[in-house]
Amino acid sequence: MKIKRIEHVAIAVRNLDAVRDTLGKLGITCDHEETLPEYAVRLAMLPIGESAIELLEPQSDTGGTAEWLKAKGESIYHLCLEVDDIDAALAELKAKQVKLLDEVPRSGHGGHRIAFIDPASTAGILFELVEMSGKH
Amino acid sequence: MKIKRIEHVAIAVRNLDAVRDTLGKLGITCDHEETLPEYAVRLAMLPIGESAIELLEPQSDTGGTAEWLKAKGESIYHLCLEVDDIDAALAELKAKQVKLLDEVPRSGHGGHRIAFIDPASTAGILFELVEMSGKH
Repeated sequence: MKIKRIEHVAIAVRNLDAVRDTLGKLGITCDHEETLPEYAVRLAMLPIGESAIELLEPQSDTGGTAEWLKAKGESIYHLCLEVDDIDAALAELKAKQVKLLDEVPRSGHGGHRIAFIDPASTAGILFELVEMSGKH
Repeated sequence: MKIKRIEHVAIAVRNLDAVRDTLGKLGITCDHEETLPEYAVRLAMLPIGESAIELLEPQSDTGGTAEWLKAKGESIYHLCLEVDDIDAALAELKAKQVKLLDEVPRSGHGGHRIAFIDPASTAGILFELVEMSGKH
């Protein structure tokens, strides 16, 4: 499998507006925001070169981002890697005994097909894979 | 100030060789390794697109990476952003009341000039700036 780029670095935050404004001081500005009800998060994408910082603010007390904040506080949460063909990538990882949180891709940010790898297989680091749909 | 790219995403690890081999399953491979005695770390750079994952393994019980591991365990540690002119970037940040851990750049990975921003000014997230010397 070929990783094309780090599509985004996700940061879990309690107050998206405050952190977005803070990063503005570094010249890092917001491209777009969206709310994903199925993940109970509001997100902002802040492009840097070919990548972006994704700020994730939970919209409820449950869900991955809320759980992360409870356990770790505001911090870098996961790395999202772009692949050409997410189905092929997941099949390859499965064949290599890499555990997956999502065996079947689901809809993520921007409507793209995404899947998370089980961090138990990647030294505790949470990786997301994305196949870009061309919507964004 | 203009951020050109995420130069690397640093991950603090206890066993660099093990994590490097694990990431190989995702097709992420090591470009070069070096030891920085002044930071008491061994590092490996694993390029992805225009960025890289930097694995940092402490070589002593003290220093930033060792302290991070003690407090947080193996996890994503900081984001390094490339700027054209690090002196100008630090002066601009200082003028904006952004606190710096390094007011004067010092030598970092690959001999490049680097400086860390005080995470107290960036929502608890640790950012490094780098001006590339052209050595790597």
